[in-house]
Amino acid sequence: MVVIGGDAAGMTAASQAVRTARPGEIDVIAFERGPRTSYAACGLPYFVEGLVDSPTRLIARTPEQFAEAGITVHVLHEVTALDTAERTVEVLDLSSGEVRIEGWDELVIATGAEGIVPPLPGIDADGVMQLRTLDDAIEIDRRIRDGARRAVVVGAGYIGLEVVEALAARGLEVSVLELAETPMAGALDADMAELVSDAVRQAGVALRLGEAVVGFERDGGHLSAVLSPASPIAADVAVLGLGVRPNVRLAAASGIPIGDAGGIVVDSSMHTPLDGVWAAGDCVESLHRVTGRQVVIALGTHANRQGRVLGTNLGGGTARFPGVIGTAITKFDDLEIARTGLTESQATAEGIRVSSTVTGSRTKVPYLPGSEAVTVKLVFRDADGVLVGAQVIGGEGAGKRIDTLATAIWAAMTVGELAMVDLSYSPPFSPVFDPVSLAAGKAAAHRAGP
Amino acid sequence: MVVIGGDAAGMTAASQAVRTARPGEIDVIAFERGPRTSYAACGLPYFVEGLVDSPTRLIARTPEQFAEAGITVHVLHEVTALDTAERTVEVLDLSSGEVRIEGWDELVIATGAEGIVPPLPGIDADGVMQLRTLDDAIEIDRRIRDGARRAVVVGAGYIGLEVVEALAARGLEVSVLELAETPMAGALDADMAELVSDAVRQAGVALRLGEAVVGFERDGGHLSAVLSPASPIAADVAVLGLGVRPNVRLAAASGIPIGDAGGIVVDSSMHTPLDGVWAAGDCVESLHRVTGRQVVIALGTHANRQGRVLGTNLGGGTARFPGVIGTAITKFDDLEIARTGLTESQATAEGIRVSSTVTGSRTKVPYLPGSEAVTVKLVFRDADGVLVGAQVIGGEGAGKRIDTLATAIWAAMTVGELAMVDLSYSPPFSPVFDPVSLAAGKAAAHRAGP
Repeated sequence: MVVIGGDAAGMTAASQAVRTARPGEIDVIAFERGPRTSYAACGLPYFVEGLVDSPTRLIARTPEQFAEAGITVHVLHEVTALDTAERTVEVLDLSSGEVRIEGWDELVIATGAEGIVPPLPGIDADGVMQLRTLDDAIEIDRRIRDGARRAVVVGAGYIGLEVVEALAARGLEVSVLELAETPMAGALDADMAELVSDAVRQAGVALRLGEAVVGFERDGGHLSAVLSPASPIAADVAVLGLGVRPNVRLAAASGIPIGDAGGIVVDSSMHTPLDGVWAAGDCVESLHRVTGRQVVIALGTHANRQGRVLGTNLGGGTARFPGVIGTAITKFDDLEIARTGLTESQATAEGIRVSSTVTGSRTKVPYLPGSEAVTVKLVFRDADGVLVGAQVIGGEGAGKRIDTLATAIWAAMTVGELAMVDLSYSPPFSPVFDPVSLAAGKAAAHRAGP
Repeated sequence: MVVIGGDAAGMTAASQAVRTARPGEIDVIAFERGPRTSYAACGLPYFVEGLVDSPTRLIARTPEQFAEAGITVHVLHEVTALDTAERTVEVLDLSSGEVRIEGWDELVIATGAEGIVPPLPGIDADGVMQLRTLDDAIEIDRRIRDGARRAVVVGAGYIGLEVVEALAARGLEVSVLELAETPMAGALDADMAELVSDAVRQAGVALRLGEAVVGFERDGGHLSAVLSPASPIAADVAVLGLGVRPNVRLAAASGIPIGDAGGIVVDSSMHTPLDGVWAAGDCVESLHRVTGRQVVIALGTHANRQGRVLGTNLGGGTARFPGVIGTAITKFDDLEIARTGLTESQATAEGIRVSSTVTGSRTKVPYLPGSEAVTVKLVFRDADGVLVGAQVIGGEGAGKRIDTLATAIWAAMTVGELAMVDLSYSPPFSPVFDPVSLAAGKAAAHRAGP
């Protein structure tokens, strides 16, 4: 078993295959072009923020720990070609420059995603960075220690806003440039995104929406300003948060089918159409359970589950990846932001006729300290009232309520059914009707009409 | 429409009936034997604890506010008899002592539950109290202000433990006597209840399990000690938390059918078998969706939902109460305690063959501050792996995860299905696999065998 990519999907697949197979049945070799395996990429902004005491805390398992489990990992080894007929990979040792050929019976492609870096003037200036790797995080931290005071974050999606929070918490003067008219436009409807805009601006961040980045100005090689059509913004550091796309170059070049959404095509066992070739994680397409279409959504939860399913099947067991609904959560300072399923605009774009309701509520009973506002938007089909999407934004305790809504979408519940589910109540935890129940009740009443 | 009982179920039914019917179509008169309507009984311990600034904050709606909605409420009026043939009630005005007869077309019985007060020697001593009403709470608060230093709480169920937390927070020396061998024995399995015992003892509370109360000693009419077979406990105040039973005396005396579980029999529209007679709240039996049996579970969530269903139907709409699974949540200091469905011992007692798993996890990724331990117990059917019960105990953020589990039980998901549900992840909110996913995955693996 050869694994290309030593992060979440690949190493989970390797571990699960070894666990599932008979002892000694599978030899696993994994190649990772970076210097490390299996670290918590989602934790990088929190390291930059200063909440994680050491970068090593983010490393889940080292190559030495994998070796103890019988898995050989070669870091700083890039797979440069693969041959599905001969069942070989060509591997470049990035330290020595040597190239070797390695054979496989079963191949796992877990090449992940890569950050989008548009070909703008000056984008290679020193100080224009991404936050994709542990080394990126260490480098941003170093620049802050070395006196960086002004930062521009390009893109107000999940990662962008997490970086904004981190940099602002470190005391930098932060601006955000976002081409869309709202932050997190792919995740939230515009009405809900307003709540996020408010929080970002309240934090003293200059949030510039509907504004493109057109280039980067430099002064002796170093970034000096980020350029937009409106006005330049002086900056010591710029962090790109423009989203990611599946890293499928190697697969595509080897004749492995790539789908319309841009990811590697796999079935529910995580097997590609080519014999003995498997794939999982940010580089593959997944079934969206609401639309029935193949989508590419880069989330650690999907990558880990897919890796586990892949490893179980490869190891001789049986597992099925049942698809995704794009459940995600983040926070900006004290505001918790979560979403699942389709937004109203996504549903409309998919040709699904839906209605929506927005319901204000509280995280606890109002008479207790710490009761915070929470806003729940539900999106449900006109035809039958089935819930197809939800967005939850609010204070402490609000966000994880998305999981209840995700479970309801997963089970194809109607809003009327959800309104009757026996959810928990006690004054320190919710009003008598939890915000989820209240929102579902309002949606059901909306359907019943006046 | 005459309503007997001016609390959650009754007043929700009244409000919903008025909202559903055509304007002016329904005249509502509600009789409440206590001095107040619709207050948050679940908030009483938090008032005693000192977290609620004024008792009036607990009053959801006053009789004057109901009057504005066209609902007449008579407080301090007890319904002493009812005639389902003549369609009348006999009402005693507790202030004046006058008795009058009131006719009705539709009757709503929402007489709630009453605290269990065993006929023990000395139980009428001054200082032996319950915490059932706002006046009880005010009285306990007064006694603490007047210098009560030693308290005994009798019963370690939800209310008992909430009272313990409140009294300990007020600086009293608190002992708890509980007949069962574990706290919250009706709600949690013994293995999970150990976590609660530990928290109670760590708070400096003397938790005496397996120990009955046999009487109360007095000194000049005042309570001086609570007596158990082991040793007496000196006390200035004792609070009974021995659970509740449906208050069905009036209904039973009037020929309204009472079920085997001790509550008024209603159908899913909340109508009793007698024409024009409805009932809702703690006084009725509900369908338990897992066992298919009728049960009596006193919870504000059930009472409010039932009241709303009742009011909708009485007002001319259509609604159905689909049953309960007994989802509940509480906390003891920083420990969040939640449960839904059947415990393992309840399932076994019902003759359902089940297995269970107990899974330790964290509320956030371990490398972030505020990551707390959480323990999830899942109970699932041997026959098909369907989840039938769950218990969640842990630090801040743990408890409300029960709602995801409740939704899964409601939808009759198997543990294998639940393990694949796309739940949210971000380092400040959970490990990559949420404790719910992790527990479901472990349960699914347990079923698959080694």
